[in-house]
Amino acid sequence: MSELTKTAVTPSTHTAPPARFSHGVRKGNILQVAGQVGFLPAVPGQPPTPAGPTLREQTLQTLANVQAVLEAGGASWEDAVMIRVYLTDTGHFTEFNEIYNAFFAGLTQPPAARTTVYVGLPGGLLVEIDALAVLG
Amino acid sequence: MSELTKTAVTPSTHTAPPARFSHGVRKGNILQVAGQVGFLPAVPGQPPTPAGPTLREQTLQTLANVQAVLEAGGASWEDAVMIRVYLTDTGHFTEFNEIYNAFFAGLTQPPAARTTVYVGLPGGLLVEIDALAVLG
Amino acid sequence: MSELTKTAVTPSTHTAPPARFSHGVRKGNILQVAGQVGFLPAVPGQPPTPAGPTLREQTLQTLANVQAVLEAGGASWEDAVMIRVYLTDTGHFTEFNEIYNAFFAGLTQPPAARTTVYVGLPGGLLVEIDALAVLG
Repeated sequence: MSELTKTAVTPSTHTAPPARFSHGVRKGNILQVAGQVGFLPAVPGQPPTPAGPTLREQTLQTLANVQAVLEAGGASWEDAVMIRVYLTDTGHFTEFNEIYNAFFAGLTQPPAARTTVYVGLPGGLLVEIDALAVLG
Repeated sequence: MSELTKTAVTPSTHTAPPARFSHGVRKGNILQVAGQVGFLPAVPGQPPTPAGPTLREQTLQTLANVQAVLEAGGASWEDAVMIRVYLTDTGHFTEFNEIYNAFFAGLTQPPAARTTVYVGLPGGLLVEIDALAVLG
Repeated sequence: MSELTKTAVTPSTHTAPPARFSHGVRKGNILQVAGQVGFLPAVPGQPPTPAGPTLREQTLQTLANVQAVLEAGGASWEDAVMIRVYLTDTGHFTEFNEIYNAFFAGLTQPPAARTTVYVGLPGGLLVEIDALAVLG
């Protein structure tokens, strides 16, 4: 087996992770995106701030944040094989899917598989998303 | 790196995904199965219907649905390296394991790793399962 | 594609899995660690016992248990690309991160990506962690 390099993927728009983890990791042809939430692009000296209180605002920002990691890692949504969606309210499923479907309307490759479950998230956050991509 | 093809895996028995995702995705030797629940095989013109209200009925149907995706992707349970189990009630753990163990009694390869956590699911659903397989 | 071998990874310190799954599975250069909790090393004839009631005790034991699987599979934390953290209380996030950061202070490779969500776990368990490693 050839020696594979492990690379941290850190978009310039992102806040520093709140702990010792990477926003994304690339090793070989695997790119794993860490769980992203709807934080706006980082502003130096300011704490992470959600895009807004609504599911729509947070979902679009969360997807943008996942995309930033994919792109910083040399990938795109077309390479994603799995997207994990964590919502906080089963009542959000229909609206979330509308946003999700519109966002991915332009895919040319088959869409990623997806698992959606309902969990707790820190105050005010309505959605968290991570993704696994296989490149090449 | 050779060019890898990304393929959607869609068993004929499955209802259409409720959003822009694939029931399974194969890329290279990775096959990711999306989160499956206990819906019966699709009937045209009818909404997705759970196999029944009990943990046993839903678990067996859910495992059948994961298996259908594995097989449509050219794999089997023998290739699964990870199975993620989402239950809704910690009181279901013992019964779930009994069903799970019986279901996998015939494996000839080492069983997949597994993570089991307790989450919320939409009304009436008691279990969701996804799987990652490595082929070859 | 060359034939890949699927191997169960079972540290000698571990209790037998409570169901038909493996604590870890290695196939090709993929090593998947099953969800670990804070059980102390197995004692024959005794049921699994958590390291203690506190987040700190359980987190350190859980990380030790994940590490034991990584090492039994020929890997280390340096190879981990994704760590999934399941907590039970959003109020634990800050303390968990302090423990996590200290634990990983000595990494020489980029730290793994991470997703943290809040779920239910069986009585008394405060944390569950699994990991995906890519070797080579």
